[in-house]
Amino acid sequence: MRVRTLVALAVVTTGAVTALAVGCENKHEANQQQQGGGSGNLGASASLAELMKARNLSEADVEAALKTYVPTGKMDEYYIFASGGQSGNVDVIGVPSMRLLKVIGVFTPESWQGWGFGGDSDKILDQGNQGPHKIRWADMHHPNLSETKGDYDGEYLFVNDKANARVAVVDLKDFQTKQMVANPLAASDHGGAFVTPNTEYVIETSQYPAPLGREYAPLGQFKEKYRGVAIFWKFDRQKGRIDKEKSWALELPPYTQDLADAGKLDSDGWAYINSFNSEMAVGGTLEGKPPIESGASQNDMDYLHVINWKKAEELVNGGKAKTIAGMRVLTMDVSGAEGVLTLVGEPKSPHGCDVTPDGKHVVVGGKLDTHTTIYDAAKMKQLIEQKKFEGKDGFGLPIMAFKEAIAGQVEIGLGPLHTVFDDKGNAYTSVFIESVVAKWSYKDYKKPVEKLKVQYNIGHILAAEGDTVSPDGKYVVAMNKMSMDRFLPVGPLYPQNFQLVGIDGEKMRLLADMPLPNAEPHYSQMIKADKIKPLKVYKVGTNALGEADPTRVEGGKERVVRNGNKVEVFMTAIRSHFTPDQVEVEEGDEVTIHLTSLETAEDQTHGFTIDMYNINVSLEPGKHENITFKADMPGTYPMYCTEFCSALHLEMTGYFLVKPKKR
Amino acid sequence: MRVRTLVALAVVTTGAVTALAVGCENKHEANQQQQGGGSGNLGASASLAELMKARNLSEADVEAALKTYVPTGKMDEYYIFASGGQSGNVDVIGVPSMRLLKVIGVFTPESWQGWGFGGDSDKILDQGNQGPHKIRWADMHHPNLSETKGDYDGEYLFVNDKANARVAVVDLKDFQTKQMVANPLAASDHGGAFVTPNTEYVIETSQYPAPLGREYAPLGQFKEKYRGVAIFWKFDRQKGRIDKEKSWALELPPYTQDLADAGKLDSDGWAYINSFNSEMAVGGTLEGKPPIESGASQNDMDYLHVINWKKAEELVNGGKAKTIAGMRVLTMDVSGAEGVLTLVGEPKSPHGCDVTPDGKHVVVGGKLDTHTTIYDAAKMKQLIEQKKFEGKDGFGLPIMAFKEAIAGQVEIGLGPLHTVFDDKGNAYTSVFIESVVAKWSYKDYKKPVEKLKVQYNIGHILAAEGDTVSPDGKYVVAMNKMSMDRFLPVGPLYPQNFQLVGIDGEKMRLLADMPLPNAEPHYSQMIKADKIKPLKVYKVGTNALGEADPTRVEGGKERVVRNGNKVEVFMTAIRSHFTPDQVEVEEGDEVTIHLTSLETAEDQTHGFTIDMYNINVSLEPGKHENITFKADMPGTYPMYCTEFCSALHLEMTGYFLVKPKKR
Repeated sequence: MRVRTLVALAVVTTGAVTALAVGCENKHEANQQQQGGGSGNLGASASLAELMKARNLSEADVEAALKTYVPTGKMDEYYIFASGGQSGNVDVIGVPSMRLLKVIGVFTPESWQGWGFGGDSDKILDQGNQGPHKIRWADMHHPNLSETKGDYDGEYLFVNDKANARVAVVDLKDFQTKQMVANPLAASDHGGAFVTPNTEYVIETSQYPAPLGREYAPLGQFKEKYRGVAIFWKFDRQKGRIDKEKSWALELPPYTQDLADAGKLDSDGWAYINSFNSEMAVGGTLEGKPPIESGASQNDMDYLHVINWKKAEELVNGGKAKTIAGMRVLTMDVSGAEGVLTLVGEPKSPHGCDVTPDGKHVVVGGKLDTHTTIYDAAKMKQLIEQKKFEGKDGFGLPIMAFKEAIAGQVEIGLGPLHTVFDDKGNAYTSVFIESVVAKWSYKDYKKPVEKLKVQYNIGHILAAEGDTVSPDGKYVVAMNKMSMDRFLPVGPLYPQNFQLVGIDGEKMRLLADMPLPNAEPHYSQMIKADKIKPLKVYKVGTNALGEADPTRVEGGKERVVRNGNKVEVFMTAIRSHFTPDQVEVEEGDEVTIHLTSLETAEDQTHGFTIDMYNINVSLEPGKHENITFKADMPGTYPMYCTEFCSALHLEMTGYFLVKPKKR
Repeated sequence: MRVRTLVALAVVTTGAVTALAVGCENKHEANQQQQGGGSGNLGASASLAELMKARNLSEADVEAALKTYVPTGKMDEYYIFASGGQSGNVDVIGVPSMRLLKVIGVFTPESWQGWGFGGDSDKILDQGNQGPHKIRWADMHHPNLSETKGDYDGEYLFVNDKANARVAVVDLKDFQTKQMVANPLAASDHGGAFVTPNTEYVIETSQYPAPLGREYAPLGQFKEKYRGVAIFWKFDRQKGRIDKEKSWALELPPYTQDLADAGKLDSDGWAYINSFNSEMAVGGTLEGKPPIESGASQNDMDYLHVINWKKAEELVNGGKAKTIAGMRVLTMDVSGAEGVLTLVGEPKSPHGCDVTPDGKHVVVGGKLDTHTTIYDAAKMKQLIEQKKFEGKDGFGLPIMAFKEAIAGQVEIGLGPLHTVFDDKGNAYTSVFIESVVAKWSYKDYKKPVEKLKVQYNIGHILAAEGDTVSPDGKYVVAMNKMSMDRFLPVGPLYPQNFQLVGIDGEKMRLLADMPLPNAEPHYSQMIKADKIKPLKVYKVGTNALGEADPTRVEGGKERVVRNGNKVEVFMTAIRSHFTPDQVEVEEGDEVTIHLTSLETAEDQTHGFTIDMYNINVSLEPGKHENITFKADMPGTYPMYCTEFCSALHLEMTGYFLVKPKKR
C-alpha cells in the first residue's frame, strides 16, 4: 500500500501548535523512536498516532472529533432548542459538542427544577388543564423562537402540545415556562408553534379533526361536524405573554392539517398549512374496514392551505368572526369568499411545510412521494388576488391549479419530509424511507447535488438559524427516529439519534452522533449562542412568574402566623439553614410556606422538600416560592435542602411536625 | 519561538492511518502548498492543523478529543448508572463519550416511556407511596449494581429515595423499574442502596432521625423517641425482587447516619455506616438558637457504625427481633450487647464511607477535616471479638478506641468527601472545598501523590468498576456541584458538571466536561459495557413486570366487551394502525384498554394516547399495557400513536368517543 502523506499535525513542546506538511513515506522507525520521547506536557500527546490506532479512528473521525470537541472552559457556538416530544419538556443542546445542557420543564413535572411539585409552578401547569383532568404530560412538537424582522431574537420560545392542544411560553431570560394557553377549540394540534416574522402571532393548527370545542359527535357526522382549526395566538412582547383576548382562529376543513409555517419578507402576512387525509377516512379496523393509513392515502392530491392572516386579522377585528368556545373564529364561508383561505393541491401524503429564507417559496414533501414540491408565494398571491381558481372543495373553499401555483418539483428520493436551508441557496431535505439528507438547490430546482446517509430513518431536520431570513449554513442536524446499532443497548426502548452534519465544506460531513435519551423530538431550532443572554441570579424575592412576590420574606422578618386552621410560614433559606427550621402544626391545618432564598451569588441554589408530602421546590439564588398544602398526615417529617449547596449541605435540615388530632 | 516537532500525525489518501514522526522546523510553506491539494476523502482532513488553530485547541485538547470521541457505529466502553438526584430517575451515560444514553423512569413519571401515565407502571409507582399522598418524585441517591462475588454482574440496579425513604429495583434486562419497597420505619434515607458482595441484601440506612414509623413526637423527646435505622432488604435473585418478609432492620441511635458500605472479601459479613450530628442538634433558628449546621459541628468526633450483619441475621432469624411497623427490628440493647453494632470515632463532620477493593479498609472523609481516615477492618473485628472498648455512647453502644481501630490518616486537603479506587492500590478522593481530585495510595497512607483541579466543588466521584473487588483503573468521573463558567448559560439553575478523568497514565488527565442537564446526581457506578446484555424486543404480550400478561391480545382476536358500565377493549397495535381504531363509550363508563403491540422487530416502538385524558403509554415491540380510567369527560378525543413508527405514523390514529349522559 502506498502511503502518501498530505498533512502532518505537529505538536510542539511550547504548547503552541503549528501545521507542518511533509512528503515522506513509511517512516515508521522514526516515528517509533520519537514516541518514547514525550515528556511533561507532551507525555500523552506523543501517543496521538497510537491513540488513533488503539481506538481505531479514521482520519475522518479525527477531523470530526476536533470539529466537535469543546474543551473545558470553552463554550459551544450554538444552542439547539429541541422539542422533547412525549417527554413534554424542551431539551437544550450545545453545538458542536452535542451536549444536553438543560431540560426545561414545560408541560411535564420535573422535580429537579421543582417544576410541578407543590410550588408556584403548579399554577402555571394548571393553566394548561382542559376539563377535569390535571394534564401532566405532553406530546410536544415544534419549538419556535421569537423573531424580530424574521431573525431569532433570543427572547422567547414557544412550544405546542399535540396531545392536549395547548401552547406554552418559555422566557429565555431564565429558561422558565411562564404561561400556558389551552386551545378551547381543537382536540389535538400539530402545526405549532410557528411565529410570524415579528412574533405578532404564534400559530397553532389542529391535527386530527373534531367538532370545534371537542363536543361529542358520531363519526357518521364527520363531514358535517368535524373541523380543523388554526389559532393565531396574539403575543404581547412587552408583557411576554400571549394575550388570549386578542387571539383568534380560522375554521378549517376536516382534513388532517399537518405542519404550518409563516411567510416572511416577500410573503410576510401569509401562512401555509399542509394537510393529508382529504379523503376524511376514519378507519373502522375492528369491522374490517381499511385502516386510516390506507384510507387516507387514496387521493393523488391533498391540500396546502394558503392563508392571508393580515386580511383575516382585519376581518376578525372588523367583527366578521363568530364566537365559539370563547374564541373568535373566522368561519370557512367568510374566509373562503374573502381570499383569506385558499387551497392548492399537494402530492401524495404531504408532509413538511417550509418557507424559504427569502420568503419566495414554500417547500412541501410527500411521505409516499419521491418529490418535494416548491410553491411560488408570489404566483399564489396573484392567483388569489385575481380569483383564478380551478374549482372548490367540498366545503366551498377555492382551489388554485397546482401547475399554476408551483415553481417546480425536485426528485429527491423515497419519503421526503422536512426541508431546511443554508446561506447559499441550498435546501436540505430529510428523506425518511431512504434514510438520507438530500441537499439540493432551491434556486434552480434540479435534482439533489448530494445525499448523505444517516442512521436511521431521519424524521425531522434542523439547520443553524435555519428558519430565519438569514440561515448560517454551518450545521444541519439529522433527527433520526431509529438508532439500532449506534449506541450501547439500553433495553427495548431505543434512544433517538441526532446526527450533527457539517455543511460548511463542499461536501456534507457527518460529525457526531448524539443519543436522545429522554424523548422523541420533533422540529427544533438552532440559534447563535450570543443571542441568548440569561439572568444569572434573581432579584431576591422573585417568583415563578418573574415578578417580585408580595409575600417575599426579608432576612430577620421570618415568622409563623396562624389564623384559625390556616398557618402561614414566612421562611428564608441561606447557606446552610432555613429559618424557621422547626415548624409544628396541627393535623388538618392548611399550611402555606412562603420561602425566599436570600442567596445572591451565581449557581448557589437550594432546594426544599418535606418528606412524604410530595413537595419539592428549587430555589435558585433570590427565588421565592409559595407552597400550599394540607397537613393531612400526622407525624414527624424532616424537611431539608435537596440541592448540594455547601460543605454543610446535609446539615441544612429541620423538622415539620404534624401533631395528631385528638380522636 | 522555537518550534520542535515531536510527533506528526499523518493522514493518507487510502483512508488508512499511519503515524509518522518528523523532526523539522517551520515548514509552513510546504504545509500551505499541501492544504489546497486535498480532495475526495481527504477534502476536509487536509485542514486538521488549521482546525486546531481555528478552534483554538491545544495538544492536550486534541488528545482528550481523540480519547473521548466515539465515531458513529462504534460503541462506548462503559456504562455509568448515575443517580438522577432530585429528578428521581436514573441517568445512563456512555464512557468515554459521556453521552446520556437513557433516562430510566424510576420514582418520577416519565411520559416518553409511558412511565406513570395511566398504564401498568402506575401500579409500580404506587408501591412506593407512603400515607395518603401519591408520591411522584424522589431525591434519588446512590445507585448500586447487583454483585456476584463482589463484582458487578450487570443484572440489577438498586436505587434509594432520600426524601421518601424507599428503594427501587431496576431490571437491566429491559432497563425498567420492576419494584419499589417503601421503608415503613424511616422518614428519610441516605445510606442506600448498597449491596452485599453477593447481593444477599440491599442496605438502606436512614438519614434524619425520626420516631421509627414516623410517629409524631415533639423535638423535646429527641433522645428518647427519635431513632436511626438500617434496613437490610433481602433480595431474591431468582425472582428479581426484594422479599419484604425476609428483610429486617437494625435500630440505630439518633445521630444522622450518612453513607454506608458493605464489607467484602476479608470483611465480608460486615457493613459500615458513618454518621454526623452525634450532638443531636435540632436547630431552632426562629428562636435565635444556632442552626443545625453549627450545632452539629461541635464535637470533635462522631461515630462510624460497625455492623456484623451475618450475626444480626442469625439473631433476627433466631427470634431476637422486635416487630415495629411490620418490620423485624433488632434493637440497640440486643445489637450492642451481641457485638452486632459497635461504634468508633470519626473526625469532624464525617462524610463518605468506602471499603477498599481488598476489603481490608474503610475510608471516611471529613467535611470540615483535612484528612481521610483509614479504618482497619481486621483490627476492628478483633476489638469487637475481644470486647475491647473504651466506653459506651448515650445509648449503651460500645465504642472502640479510635487509635486502635485505624490503619492511618492521610492529609488530603480541605473537605475530603468520597473515595474510589483503581487497580494499582490508589485511592481518589473528592475534595469539595479545595475543588480537586486527590490521588493517594491506600497501601501506605502517605500524602496525595497528585491533585487534579476540577471545575468546581466536586461532591461525589466514581471510578470504572470502582466499587468492586477488581476496579479497572481506567477512568474516574468527578461529579462537580458547580459549573459556573463551563457551559453556555441556561438561566439561574446551572447544570452540574461531570468531568471525565483518565487515570491510566502516569498523571491524571481531564478528558471531558459533561453538563448534567436534568439532575443533581450522587454516587454512581461505572460498569464494563459487555456485562450488560439487555433484551431487544419483548415476547409478544409481555407486561411492565416482565410477565406474559393474562389479558394480552392476539391479532384477529381484538374485541370490545361490555359488562354493565365496565367496558373492556382488547386492542392491538401494529404498523400503522390500532384495532379497533374507533371506540365509543358512554359518559361515566369505567374503561379498560388491554393493548398489545404485535411488533417483533427491534426499535419498532409505538405509543398510545387519548387526548385530554392524561394517558400515554409506550409500547416497545411485544409490550402489553392495561389502561384503566373513567370516561368522565364527554366528547370527541383522538387517540393516536405518539412514537414516530413509520412513514405513515401520523395516520396511526383513531377516535375515542364519549357519548354524553342524557341530562
